Amino acid sequence: MPKPNVREQLIEAGLKTLYRHGYNGSGVQDITDAASVPKGSFYNHFKSKEAFAAEALERYWQSGAGRRALLTDAEVDPVERLRQYFRTLADAVVRNEFEKGCLIGNFSTELSGQSPEIRERLAAIYAAWGRVIETCVRAAREAGRVRPKAPASAIAGFLLNSWEGAVLRAKVERDKSPLEQFEQVVFASLFT
Amino acid sequence: MPKPNVREQLIEAGLKTLYRHGYNGSGVQDITDAASVPKGSFYNHFKSKEAFAAEALERYWQSGAGRRALLTDAEVDPVERLRQYFRTLADAVVRNEFEKGCLIGNFSTELSGQSPEIRERLAAIYAAWGRVIETCVRAAREAGRVRPKAPASAIAGFLLNSWEGAVLRAKVERDKSPLEQFEQVVFASLFT
Repeated sequence: MPKPNVREQLIEAGLKTLYRHGYNGSGVQDITDAASVPKGSFYNHFKSKEAFAAEALERYWQSGAGRRALLTDAEVDPVERLRQYFRTLADAVVRNEFEKGCLIGNFSTELSGQSPEIRERLAAIYAAWGRVIETCVRAAREAGRVRPKAPASAIAGFLLNSWEGAVLRAKVERDKSPLEQFEQVVFASLFT
Repeated sequence: MPKPNVREQLIEAGLKTLYRHGYNGSGVQDITDAASVPKGSFYNHFKSKEAFAAEALERYWQSGAGRRALLTDAEVDPVERLRQYFRTLADAVVRNEFEKGCLIGNFSTELSGQSPEIRERLAAIYAAWGRVIETCVRAAREAGRVRPKAPASAIAGFLLNSWEGAVLRAKVERDKSPLEQFEQVVFASLFT
């Protein structure tokens, strides 16, 4: 039997802890308890809770790569790609029973003022996320399907930020109607 | 000289502390230190930090009543009212140097899973906020200015949630461009 990978256990279990209870609501002890490893082992793998949270955030972001591939499938109409992508994200929020929201959005409000390391990581994630959506918006524009004249990057940013706002609201309401309203209004207004 | 109102000092200074550091990032000691009152006095006025945060949130919401009055000024074109309202909110975010975001949005992500009391208060605030915006959207629709056929309540919810998303993103970027993109895309897409 290989020796269990303590670092991996910490990231997997700790990501769930941070996702549910927030950064300041999760102590190192909570993370090591969730991973069933001794508290002392944490600092063998991570120099701080902040460094750990940055890695957990990166893991969370990477876990969405399969969904983001929907946006680059050139076989599918670009507006339909966007619609399917946000539906797939909505399904994930519903599966989480709304309670956890989006870790990227949660860290944005909780940590942007507190941790320069996390804030920079968030900015890089949003930039990469925006670029994938922007490529799809450009394809929709080439097909004459985009109503506003704003740059594709501004439309992509708006979609992304509005999505995070819808998830934040769904977390309060514990209801998917904010996610449905997002789809209903976006696809009746921004695209033809 | 009247005796200083300790309760009022706690709310004023503690609101700033919660706004900047979040709920779990602010201890009762931080709040009483900020208010320059003895720690013991806190529990003479509030039964818990949670009860205190609910009052601070209410105070924050009430402080926006003057801005919300812009939405009900029947002398002004309803689409222009909405534009001016969100511009005024954007000015406030810029004045806070993006660092603090919106207390309503911050509590939404941090506390919806943790505190039923705060979550209920947030839902009531969003409902009231949505109603004021909805009235303005209805007036715009009567004037033939609303593009999507979605119910006015859904459009109002979308505007509100998208605004919170823009503020969340501005907090990460420390830049007003998400707020500008909100205006640029919304007023070129949803309204004619």
